[in-house]
Amino acid sequence: MATPSMEDYLEQIWLKSAATGEARVSDIAEALEVLPSSVTKMARKLDREGYLVYERYKGLILTSKGEAFGRKLAGRHELLERFLRLIGVDETHVYNDVEGIEHHLSWDAIDRITELVHVLERNPAMLDQLERYRAADRADEERER
Amino acid sequence: MATPSMEDYLEQIWLKSAATGEARVSDIAEALEVLPSSVTKMARKLDREGYLVYERYKGLILTSKGEAFGRKLAGRHELLERFLRLIGVDETHVYNDVEGIEHHLSWDAIDRITELVHVLERNPAMLDQLERYRAADRADEERER
Ligand SMILES: [Mn+2]
Ligand SMILES: [Mn+2]
Repeated sequence: MATPSMEDYLEQIWLKSAATGEARVSDIAEALEVLPSSVTKMARKLDREGYLVYERYKGLILTSKGEAFGRKLAGRHELLERFLRLIGVDETHVYNDVEGIEHHLSWDAIDRITELVHVLERNPAMLDQLERYRAADRADEERER
Repeated sequence: MATPSMEDYLEQIWLKSAATGEARVSDIAEALEVLPSSVTKMARKLDREGYLVYERYKGLILTSKGEAFGRKLAGRHELLERFLRLIGVDETHVYNDVEGIEHHLSWDAIDRITELVHVLERNPAMLDQLERYRAADRADEERER
């Protein structure tokens, strides 16, 4: 990952807290591949902005504001992975593509993609059609080689 | 736009060349909101890599390699705008969302979104369903206020 953004930090802190009940500076540093000092710097900023409480030697405790926003960010990541898998993007690209785009889409676009995913998931015929189309595209590519 | 990438430059050079038959340093600087010196710096790099020929006081002339790649980049931008409009993203977000995400998606994802756009465009019933879903979502939001 390039330099993680504030959203990347909050997302990871929420994921760790949800999974294990706590988020430690060292865990977040490892997850985001940054130095612990970068985590404590961001933790102080997130503390000042009311997303969490950071005390040295304790962990990072999300406030209800941080909890709600972290959940929203993690949900956005998950939605975008679901969308890319649904339309047939190869598993080897899904995670990196989502990491690349998630912070650059408006919430309007996220809401519209949410609706699209719901509608597609309720339309197996539509997904079949998409898959046949994809198979035809791939056959064309083979022929061109 | 944040600092434009090499792809942003090639995309703009292709667009200008396609529209007016030539791409001048000053036009590209204006389109990307950068200094002309940034354009000439990138032009030398693109020249070295075989995408265009750059001579001072002349314009930027795409090679066939640059022409093909520029067309591909401009096509990707256009596809993503089409996709976001199709699913109902508000016009005020479309351009910025695309500028934000276009360089961060794998070509695999671009190919799959291309297929999705084709299938959706041939399925007015599907688009209707999406629109009804969107209208219901918006009614819910109104009610929550
Ligand atoms: Mn993420
Ligand atoms: Mn673009």
